[in-house]
Amino acid sequence: MASGSAGSRVSCGRDLSCVPEVADTLAAVAKLGFDFLCMPLFHPRFRREYERDPAKSRPGAQTRSDLLLCGRDWNTLIVGKLSPWIETDSELTTERRNSEAALVQELNFCAYLGLPAFMIPLRGPHCANLARILLNHIHTGHHSCMFWIRVPLLAPEDTREDLIENESFKQMDDGSNDEKTWAWWHSFRTLCDYNKRICLAIEIEADLPSDTLIDKWLGEPIKAAILPTSIFLTNKKGFPVLSKAHQRIIFRLFKLEAQFIFTGENRHNEKDLRSYLQYLEYLNQNRPAPNAYEHFAKGYEDYLQSPLQPLMDNLESQTYEVFEKDPIKYSQYQQAVYRCLLDRVPEEQMETNVQVLMVLGAGRGPLVNASLRAAKQAKRKLRVYAVEKNPNAVVTLENWKFEEWGDQVTVVSCDMREWTAPEKADIIVSELLGSFGDNELSPECLDGAQHFLKDDGISIPCSYTSFLAPLSSSKLYNEVRGCRERDKDPECHFETPYVVRLHNFHQLADPKPCFTFVHPTTAINFKYFVVAVFVAHNVSIKPETHSPGMFSWFPILFPLKQPISLSCGDNVSVRFWRCNHGKKVWYEWAVTEPVCSAIHNPAGRSYTIGL
Amino acid sequence: MASGSAGSRVSCGRDLSCVPEVADTLAAVAKLGFDFLCMPLFHPRFRREYERDPAKSRPGAQTRSDLLLCGRDWNTLIVGKLSPWIETDSELTTERRNSEAALVQELNFCAYLGLPAFMIPLRGPHCANLARILLNHIHTGHHSCMFWIRVPLLAPEDTREDLIENESFKQMDDGSNDEKTWAWWHSFRTLCDYNKRICLAIEIEADLPSDTLIDKWLGEPIKAAILPTSIFLTNKKGFPVLSKAHQRIIFRLFKLEAQFIFTGENRHNEKDLRSYLQYLEYLNQNRPAPNAYEHFAKGYEDYLQSPLQPLMDNLESQTYEVFEKDPIKYSQYQQAVYRCLLDRVPEEQMETNVQVLMVLGAGRGPLVNASLRAAKQAKRKLRVYAVEKNPNAVVTLENWKFEEWGDQVTVVSCDMREWTAPEKADIIVSELLGSFGDNELSPECLDGAQHFLKDDGISIPCSYTSFLAPLSSSKLYNEVRGCRERDKDPECHFETPYVVRLHNFHQLADPKPCFTFVHPTTAINFKYFVVAVFVAHNVSIKPETHSPGMFSWFPILFPLKQPISLSCGDNVSVRFWRCNHGKKVWYEWAVTEPVCSAIHNPAGRSYTIGL
Repeated sequence: MASGSAGSRVSCGRDLSCVPEVADTLAAVAKLGFDFLCMPLFHPRFRREYERDPAKSRPGAQTRSDLLLCGRDWNTLIVGKLSPWIETDSELTTERRNSEAALVQELNFCAYLGLPAFMIPLRGPHCANLARILLNHIHTGHHSCMFWIRVPLLAPEDTREDLIENESFKQMDDGSNDEKTWAWWHSFRTLCDYNKRICLAIEIEADLPSDTLIDKWLGEPIKAAILPTSIFLTNKKGFPVLSKAHQRIIFRLFKLEAQFIFTGENRHNEKDLRSYLQYLEYLNQNRPAPNAYEHFAKGYEDYLQSPLQPLMDNLESQTYEVFEKDPIKYSQYQQAVYRCLLDRVPEEQMETNVQVLMVLGAGRGPLVNASLRAAKQAKRKLRVYAVEKNPNAVVTLENWKFEEWGDQVTVVSCDMREWTAPEKADIIVSELLGSFGDNELSPECLDGAQHFLKDDGISIPCSYTSFLAPLSSSKLYNEVRGCRERDKDPECHFETPYVVRLHNFHQLADPKPCFTFVHPTTAINFKYFVVAVFVAHNVSIKPETHSPGMFSWFPILFPLKQPISLSCGDNVSVRFWRCNHGKKVWYEWAVTEPVCSAIHNPAGRSYTIGL
Repeated sequence: MASGSAGSRVSCGRDLSCVPEVADTLAAVAKLGFDFLCMPLFHPRFRREYERDPAKSRPGAQTRSDLLLCGRDWNTLIVGKLSPWIETDSELTTERRNSEAALVQELNFCAYLGLPAFMIPLRGPHCANLARILLNHIHTGHHSCMFWIRVPLLAPEDTREDLIENESFKQMDDGSNDEKTWAWWHSFRTLCDYNKRICLAIEIEADLPSDTLIDKWLGEPIKAAILPTSIFLTNKKGFPVLSKAHQRIIFRLFKLEAQFIFTGENRHNEKDLRSYLQYLEYLNQNRPAPNAYEHFAKGYEDYLQSPLQPLMDNLESQTYEVFEKDPIKYSQYQQAVYRCLLDRVPEEQMETNVQVLMVLGAGRGPLVNASLRAAKQAKRKLRVYAVEKNPNAVVTLENWKFEEWGDQVTVVSCDMREWTAPEKADIIVSELLGSFGDNELSPECLDGAQHFLKDDGISIPCSYTSFLAPLSSSKLYNEVRGCRERDKDPECHFETPYVVRLHNFHQLADPKPCFTFVHPTTAINFKYFVVAVFVAHNVSIKPETHSPGMFSWFPILFPLKQPISLSCGDNVSVRFWRCNHGKKVWYEWAVTEPVCSAIHNPAGRSYTIGL
């Protein structure tokens, strides 16, 4: 039951509602190409009544023997299914009690067999008792089974019509009826306190919800998708295929590495079930190829990293190496310097006018090289200062100078805020931006360097803006929650931003600008063409304007201690503060609409950036 | 500025908006009888502009010298007031920046002087920046000043009229306009994460809000009430007095030990300000006397105690002593046994019929004595078994037997669940109930003893029911939060019930029944008159039926990890489970409406009751 990944095979299972002969059935299903089998653990007609005779004192085994399969097969090839008659939230006491006892029995038997996953259907909004018993099971014993909560993307038609009758116009208008099953799931996982072992198995029917609702579902921790054979169409050659809309969901599920479960009879009688599997594998092989960014980010999905603090800590060689590999960023810098040189030095001065360019935070030299390339391209003369405060990287710079650059470049081993420059610069070039723009303290560094920029000098970049968008993700919420450290305040990890390749999440609205910084800061020197350079040579990690192929920055995630429930149409307001204490910089944040959250990270108690 | 308490004087302060001579003013105010003085720390007209000349470079002291009062006077007699021009949430950048700098300056100066409290007004819904700066101040430095957030009970009329114009019908209908200032406060303290040092100074005007809203306010952490002289009426003799409605609020504020602050000019020109103080002191002396329960509970208000576990732990002598002092409970038991004896033994058998009565959990003997008194009163014969599992209390019982009871009473040193009784009982009497009824495991104990109750035998009590009501209290929330223990799960203390004399809280709805147990459990033996006995001889800690004078049980509090915001008219649903594992019993609980909470205490991970 190994989970598939990009390029590799898709993992598919076969769902059956009755399996009289488990070993034979498993063999038959494997022969068709399935990776695993979903089946009930107890006989569908063997409904137990625990409190009443005759069922209560019925002799003999409750279900088949575990000896029918070897342990390894139970552990890897079988997904258990809860008996469908179990209604732990029934209002009928006897039914509820029987269901409770049966649920506990099945959960325990599943743990005894060591199944990798157990599937539990959600069939309505009332699920508190089910949640409680499952949570109790998870909190006792040392089993590690995952629980796949089976929820249809849309509520079954009959319950939908019921509702329309009762609360007609409201339900029709706002699409909230469509979100009904999402609300079931949301209640259930909230009661279960977002437990990591409780995941989703979505049921995909012929009718699909709106794109917005699909986005919402795909932000949830989906581990499996159930595909009834009834949703397949038949192509000219008689093979099962899916509609375009269904294909789009399948492609997105591939990205989440969901497993697929085929349910229902073969409806393409000339073919066998293999043809469904082959079609899914065909889609897998023909899925949109990952772009360079996705490729680069492979393996980092939803993986939380602490933001770098290049000012306080000296970066490591490997970190420079990764950044230097960005195929886009340095060519953008080169273009910016090129335009800037053309603009500052008219052709008649190309031999006489030597521009002074300072690379502030030169690292291992990529911006020096980009600038020299730009000068060559523009046929302009350049004198370069490469200022770097990391003495280890200065070794690299001095070697570049010795081997390549020569006298054209002066290497300065110094913090730019403390450097006494021998002359003023025409152009300063820096790459001090972090995932949240200013979070690596570019503003403070460049402000400290501004005094050696000529009055008409140019800073590249001349401005930068951070953007914020609200998102929900129980995956990321759990990842953050897992970052708790024993010796720190128990909420410290919720007051720290993380750099992360966002993957299993739902973005609730478009990003909005947060902080903008402009260099140099004296407004009178602000000239049109500088902006133009950066409109033309923009780098962006906003999803809709993301510079293609650029991978230098993953987004930054600011967590909230408490998930906030939103209704459709709610305004979300967030307050962000960037605080500077002379010795440190930090952010504080709070939600103020639709309800207030606590202010996160007051006085920088959990996270600061050292100046 | 010592805070007043029942019977003692009320602590009153004088509010002034301008104090040119601090020592003289303080002396004058003290002479009038005030305990403290509220005044601005900076001159009202000395508005600082930090970024602009000439104010920026204005020479000289920013405000008066701290040498004008001795340290002790600053520490105990002065409450600082924020300069009224400060608008930290202004949309005008200059005003906001000036306000931020001035707020920080005043907070720091207040800490420097060591004032006991600093008053900050809330004047509108936008207060995120104010909250942030205050929270930053609290989280830096080691000062201990309290912050009194000044909020009017009702929004000033002009803003109310504004709103009526704009959102007319909605606002008029649901009274939400009246709750506007409460919403300001709720946002503010939520942003401040319910910080303990942030309290309320409510401003009481001539117009009062509805009783429901007053209840809501009085559930908040009110430390001071501001009384404008304008709300006072004049009685026949020309003295200032308050309306009945105002008096009722004052009486309730006395119970919360709020301090009072008089603001505004003397409006009773023939009298001096002393007459206002005297009137308040008069109300204080004439406040409704505390009843026996309030008297008994004095000092325990909002003090969290772990529920006793008398089954697992042996109680201490002192604990028995406290319970035995209850003036009501044992006379209720005596009446129940009395009626029961009369009912079971007709007059003609009074000499011949010896009823067998077993006290299960006899402790130090109060129920034995109550039963013997009942027998005497009923003129019926009784043979008593006093069963007690605490060997230490058995010492007391054996001494009672030797000194008083004689052969009529057999002392049995045994757990009732393990006892082999020599005969069956007509009546079993027990007092195994906890604050939540069954939480001291009365059901399990009595079920274990039921086999030695005659088929027509009676259990006193024959049934009991626990009740639940939702409440909000930031005081109690903070008390629970303060119970975190370093070595336990960081949310463990939110999954534990507490026994507490509820005091500074707001009960949101009437209590509803939760669990009911009936003894003996075989329904066929259930006879009408037994119920009758207990309808007549009910003991109750439900607020509306609380047995007068009975103090044996404080209520139990089940906390929620996260406060849940409710709107007027919201349905609140709570699920409670009582789980029994054979070795332990525990509760689990969750809110399921209007939104779901996590299930608290799954699998009894944080709190169990040992069987």
